[in-house]
Amino acid sequence: MTPEFKFMVRATDGDARSGMITTGRGLVPTPAFMPVGTRASVKAVDPDEVRSSGASILLGNTYHLMLRPGAQIIERAGGLAQFMGWNGPTLTDSGGFQVFSLGERAKVTDDGVVFSSHIDGDRVELTPRRAIEIQAALGSDIAMVLDECPRGEASREEVIRAMERTTLWARDQVNVERAKGQALFGIVQGGTHVDLRLSHLEELAQMDFDGIALGGLSVGEPVPEMYRVLHEVCPRMPAQRPRYLMGVGTPDDILEAISHGVDMFDCVMPTRNARNGQVFVHGGRINIKQARYAEDPRPIEPGCTCPCCSRFARRYLRHLFLAGEMLVYRLLTLHNLHHYGECTAGARVAIEEGSFESFRKSWGTPRVDDL
Amino acid sequence: MTPEFKFMVRATDGDARSGMITTGRGLVPTPAFMPVGTRASVKAVDPDEVRSSGASILLGNTYHLMLRPGAQIIERAGGLAQFMGWNGPTLTDSGGFQVFSLGERAKVTDDGVVFSSHIDGDRVELTPRRAIEIQAALGSDIAMVLDECPRGEASREEVIRAMERTTLWARDQVNVERAKGQALFGIVQGGTHVDLRLSHLEELAQMDFDGIALGGLSVGEPVPEMYRVLHEVCPRMPAQRPRYLMGVGTPDDILEAISHGVDMFDCVMPTRNARNGQVFVHGGRINIKQARYAEDPRPIEPGCTCPCCSRFARRYLRHLFLAGEMLVYRLLTLHNLHHYGECTAGARVAIEEGSFESFRKSWGTPRVDDL
Repeated sequence: MTPEFKFMVRATDGDARSGMITTGRGLVPTPAFMPVGTRASVKAVDPDEVRSSGASILLGNTYHLMLRPGAQIIERAGGLAQFMGWNGPTLTDSGGFQVFSLGERAKVTDDGVVFSSHIDGDRVELTPRRAIEIQAALGSDIAMVLDECPRGEASREEVIRAMERTTLWARDQVNVERAKGQALFGIVQGGTHVDLRLSHLEELAQMDFDGIALGGLSVGEPVPEMYRVLHEVCPRMPAQRPRYLMGVGTPDDILEAISHGVDMFDCVMPTRNARNGQVFVHGGRINIKQARYAEDPRPIEPGCTCPCCSRFARRYLRHLFLAGEMLVYRLLTLHNLHHYGECTAGARVAIEEGSFESFRKSWGTPRVDDL
Repeated sequence: MTPEFKFMVRATDGDARSGMITTGRGLVPTPAFMPVGTRASVKAVDPDEVRSSGASILLGNTYHLMLRPGAQIIERAGGLAQFMGWNGPTLTDSGGFQVFSLGERAKVTDDGVVFSSHIDGDRVELTPRRAIEIQAALGSDIAMVLDECPRGEASREEVIRAMERTTLWARDQVNVERAKGQALFGIVQGGTHVDLRLSHLEELAQMDFDGIALGGLSVGEPVPEMYRVLHEVCPRMPAQRPRYLMGVGTPDDILEAISHGVDMFDCVMPTRNARNGQVFVHGGRINIKQARYAEDPRPIEPGCTCPCCSRFARRYLRHLFLAGEMLVYRLLTLHNLHHYGECTAGARVAIEEGSFESFRKSWGTPRVDDL
């Protein structure tokens, strides 16, 4: 375990838990949503705005950053947080998910992955050890192991092979030297097969990881399948270490996972959907492009205290979107990040008060009449 | 004259002057730079940021706004400022310049202009009266007459014809009913022909305009030609009314024009150049894309107090630009608008102190070693 990295559960409510992660760069109250800053920028917003949305940690991507600007440039700048002007902890995804989504352009063996860069086509090799070394250079507060993430439609046999390789790699990576104070999380695979998930979890839980993540969910399987896995697997994850559900999801998904004891989340939905004009409101989503908002003087969600809702009307946001004015991507992103920040902050308070289920129900109750 | 619109010269230094415009929506200290918000958004930044850059008035475009979202939508929202969340005065360009830049797609007669919309190809007619009516609906604090802006390479005869038509239209427009408190400025044409400029100025100065603008400059003519016109024409513009140089220019151009007594400016350079990676510094410009900034830990300009320079290093800005992260367009725009805001604010103070020429010299002195 990494001595500078601490996790404490402060309260529980059923399987749901509220806690606190301590890193060398600051505190992370959990459950926590981590906005995605793939290329050292949470798209369309600045670090102060990310912080004001309620986020205390953000995520960068090893695969993207090793290609551009390159890990050495970030290392010499003092690490990812310093490089991007983020005054707080960061987590780096290992890049496994991105590499595997390259499909034909990546070749996976037990030694690692060879792929051609999406930027210039250069041949790049990413071994498990190298994935840790690069993250040491990036200087994130939490590094993730390189894992093999099977496709959503993979057969049971393919899932098993990916699990076995992930375990092999995990054993190799757990002892590679990291940056000072940098934690390392293992990643549990196993698709939607609960028995595989549990056996993989058992293997990883025995290794010296500071936290355990669930990977390979929300990759195309039906939502009830994912919920079944969360229900069966999460409560059996080591209680003393943070539990991180990777790449999930809607606020509903996050609240479901929190109810089963998950502590950390990341997802591109609040940022990516905003850039497509889709904003989250209690009980659903609206798309700002719709003609019915052409003269709507209301904010996205009346009562919302985000920088977008406290200032701008739907009619203006719709105009900006149709005109392609980039201000709108920022404003909608601010709203969505605030929505996610309020969701996890509300969950934390509710768990401490023992009222998580009623909070969850109230969160999902529409507050506008036009969903 | 419009009773709610007032202009007062507070100090002069040679031909340069410092003054104050009063509108129903607030004050505009002059010399003033007006950021361009063509489609009801100063590209890449929000209204609070525009204000913080030192701007007190911004510009919208009649041609663009009449097509999208439409003047009625803006009128029903309470006018352009209210629609876009800008708490201050606005000026609307008449759209003449945009229409004429459509070239083949616009047909000009003494009655006005017929053109096909760049959005859907629809046939649109813009008469001089209609240009004022639309601006009345947009509810700007300063409206501009529809003028004919000849091409930069136009012959003397073409320039004369455009002047004559502009005068004809001006006579028609000056008496059209406007929004309450809305001022109207006339536009002087005449290309780089000083005799034509002076005779057109004389005609327009006799009409009941609240301010006089110079149009048709910075349209491709050599800079010394423009400076010659400014030198000969500006000091002869009516002293009691604001003088507005349209579409100009670099900080050097603006300081030159201020020295000849111009009060108001607009230009897309600070915003457009930012989106191309070009930022203004004292004594020149730098392009953030250059390889020599790859590991440069300095802000764009050390000592600059803008939100970009007070927080972000060149190495990070360059990375964002190469990665295509939209945050960089905002940050570079903030720097450039701040640079322009400081330039005009500094000029105002210097004029009041009688030190305009030494301010101008110091403004143009490089403060970084790598121009």
